[in-house]
Amino acid sequence: MEIPEQDVAHMARAVELAGRGHGSTTPNPVVGCVVLDAAGQVAGEGYHAYAGGPHAEVVALAQAGERARGGTAYVTLEPCDHTGRTGPCSRALLDAGVARVVIAVSDPNPTAAGGAARLRAHGVSVTTGVLTEAAERVNEEWLTFMRLGRSHVTWKFAATLDGRSAAEDGTSKWITSPEARADVHRMRAASDAIVAGIGTVLADDPRLTARPGGEKPARAPVRVVVDPDARTPATARVLDDEAPTLIAVADDVDTGLKADLLRLPRHDAGLDLRALLAELAARQLVSVFLEGGPALAGSFVKEGLVDRVVAYVAPALLGSGKAALGAAGVGTIGELHRLRFDDVTVIGPDVRLTARPVHPSTPRETRPAGPQPGREQ
Amino acid sequence: MEIPEQDVAHMARAVELAGRGHGSTTPNPVVGCVVLDAAGQVAGEGYHAYAGGPHAEVVALAQAGERARGGTAYVTLEPCDHTGRTGPCSRALLDAGVARVVIAVSDPNPTAAGGAARLRAHGVSVTTGVLTEAAERVNEEWLTFMRLGRSHVTWKFAATLDGRSAAEDGTSKWITSPEARADVHRMRAASDAIVAGIGTVLADDPRLTARPGGEKPARAPVRVVVDPDARTPATARVLDDEAPTLIAVADDVDTGLKADLLRLPRHDAGLDLRALLAELAARQLVSVFLEGGPALAGSFVKEGLVDRVVAYVAPALLGSGKAALGAAGVGTIGELHRLRFDDVTVIGPDVRLTARPVHPSTPRETRPAGPQPGREQ
Ligand SMILES: NC(=O)c1ccc[n+]([C@@H]2O[C@H](COP(=O)([O-])OP(=O)(O)OC[C@H]3O[C@@H](n4cnc5c(N)ncnc54)[C@H](OP(=O)(O)O)[C@@H]3O)[C@@H](O)[C@H]2O)c1
Ligand SMILES: NC(=O)c1ccc[n+]([C@@H]2O[C@H](COP(=O)([O-])OP(=O)(O)OC[C@H]3O[C@@H](n4cnc5c(N)ncnc54)[C@H](OP(=O)(O)O)[C@@H]3O)[C@@H](O)[C@H]2O)c1
Repeated sequence: MEIPEQDVAHMARAVELAGRGHGSTTPNPVVGCVVLDAAGQVAGEGYHAYAGGPHAEVVALAQAGERARGGTAYVTLEPCDHTGRTGPCSRALLDAGVARVVIAVSDPNPTAAGGAARLRAHGVSVTTGVLTEAAERVNEEWLTFMRLGRSHVTWKFAATLDGRSAAEDGTSKWITSPEARADVHRMRAASDAIVAGIGTVLADDPRLTARPGGEKPARAPVRVVVDPDARTPATARVLDDEAPTLIAVADDVDTGLKADLLRLPRHDAGLDLRALLAELAARQLVSVFLEGGPALAGSFVKEGLVDRVVAYVAPALLGSGKAALGAAGVGTIGELHRLRFDDVTVIGPDVRLTARPVHPSTPRETRPAGPQPGREQ
Repeated sequence: MEIPEQDVAHMARAVELAGRGHGSTTPNPVVGCVVLDAAGQVAGEGYHAYAGGPHAEVVALAQAGERARGGTAYVTLEPCDHTGRTGPCSRALLDAGVARVVIAVSDPNPTAAGGAARLRAHGVSVTTGVLTEAAERVNEEWLTFMRLGRSHVTWKFAATLDGRSAAEDGTSKWITSPEARADVHRMRAASDAIVAGIGTVLADDPRLTARPGGEKPARAPVRVVVDPDARTPATARVLDDEAPTLIAVADDVDTGLKADLLRLPRHDAGLDLRALLAELAARQLVSVFLEGGPALAGSFVKEGLVDRVVAYVAPALLGSGKAALGAAGVGTIGELHRLRFDDVTVIGPDVRLTARPVHPSTPRETRPAGPQPGREQ
């Protein structure tokens, strides 16, 4: 089936609008909406800006007012069909008298889905599958969270062109530029949680806070230290009051550490990382920014739990020192973890490469125990 | 001094023309020339295509004919002033009656320099320093060869995003794509010599030939194996008759190896690499393509003998296995080898990053012994 060019153009605009909510809608999806009047002129635009705020469709319809009657609505995600804080969007579209609804991605949320069916049942013409790839991409964190029942993981690393993150003596300040570090703060601020291994905490005593533009963001991401034996020092900076912190420890460990503990089963070289991500999802933490170190990142990669890699590569050579990535379960070339580059951007003197697995994770048979991740009402 | 916009535009064209000779003018420079008539219209263009062929100025002047009289010539390199195979270009410009000559880069060759002075002495208006950076870049191999008295070195490597060139068991076929490998063959073919360490020869038995488009090129680069103790097996593929081969061995080694030997002093972990590059320059090999492995590349980097790095980065992760670069003399972060990215190009699924040292090598006090590298006559 040929998709009309103007459908693609309007949906592209809706995807762009959706992106504006990126990083502030958790645990909701990002959604964008464009409403045309019966003559095909743009009458309203909207996006979901923050959890608890009005849905994209409601914003766009309010802007369109009476002009929506007989018109078309482009929505990046299937309109919800349940009565939450804002009432079902399917109902709002019907009330506004929209004649046609174009949808990019179906709602994977069982409690929200059904919007398309209800619209059809009321005689609205529904087109699906328009610009699906771009709409999936802009919403990847939430879709991973919903489909896999775990937090979406972005692994970030900074390294030299030869893939090293520290010199032989452990020094690493600074390999990448201030511009690259500012970009990292921006990405941190758009995440729900920042995860690091105890190795990194002991070596660098990092703050793991997001300071975009040097400032404290409106919403501080939760800091998570993966620390099986509760070795985090009481004086560690991650335990300051700049942001909430969870220390993930083994369920068999006996510790007096004064901190919010997350008890998890042991697995291989450390903790069960699937269980970690399910627990974080149960806490409505949709997106995780994994900041290493190499050992922990290696385990995430090995387990197939990295959904996106963001590499900041500096124009420099070390030749020795700590590698950016530790053992990731590859013994021979056929076991290579294959990715695809989706973006290459020059950031100051550095280059940022964004890659995603060629074979993304697939849903597990069973959903995690604990509260079901859900679209916030 | 403000450089007129049209001077820059015409010189940019001359630089573009110069680039067409890239890889086939050794041991000559690449040179491009644009001739305008007295009214400022382009009357002739030319470049130096191959050693022994006519110089750029001669080609452009021939095309311009009588229209050159009273006109302007843009030349990427100072016109030569000596009588070689083609006669001095300064003389040709005077004979053609050119009124003004614009030059990007002065000739570092003592036997060829003086062209600008002669032109001025005969009343021609001479402007220098127009678009110097671009003209230096297009001619970087030859300028390094002339100024430093050694071959210009491009170190190429192929690695995963985490900087590894082989898996734990040594397998490495293939990390990068056919597109990237084709690009390497193109770069090899534009080089005068391909250099590898004995470690690579023993591990992979590579052919080290250039096969751009799968074919044997018109001019086969010389293969050079850096092999202090003459461990190259008599059956090694580098010793086949596909291309000439030099085996660089220590001057104290006693070997019956049937091959062209280059005897060099020992230094640190192997051979004296400065001596190697001076010897290759003495053989009129202007550009060297260094293909590793990591140990040899590390020594080149340590010695400050890498002029350009070309990294083919594949969207893949290994986490263990051979690092792309071996020890390069860096103990702490302050000793980092700083580069600058000059080009980032997507090649098939891979990314090619080209970088050059922030602090390029500087000329040595003394020129190497042996035949003086010179602009071919
Ligand atoms: N350039 C960058 O982007 C960057 C970013 C972060 C860190 N770094 C550098 O990385 C270094 C620290 O890295 P690291 O590799 O030593 O430590 P790490 O990866 O930060 O932490 C490793 C530790 O995490 C714990 N862990 C829990 N579950 C695990 C699992 N499933 N797999 C693996 N580990 C698990 C283990 O603790 P137990 O040993 O207690 O069991 C393990 O030793 C520092 O030098 C730091 O500067 C660089
Ligand atoms: N991905 C890529 O782009 C790429 C390219 C090439 C190779 N490789 C891989 O690299 C591996 C081989 O690398 P390698 O590091 O073992 O060997 P190598 O760098 O190819 O050769 C090292 C040897 O070169 C000799 N040498 C002479 N002068 C030297 C000096 N100044 N500094 C250092 N070495 C000097 C030494 O020989 P003696 O020991 O006899 O003294 C030394 O052992 C192979 O596995 C190959 O597959 C990968």
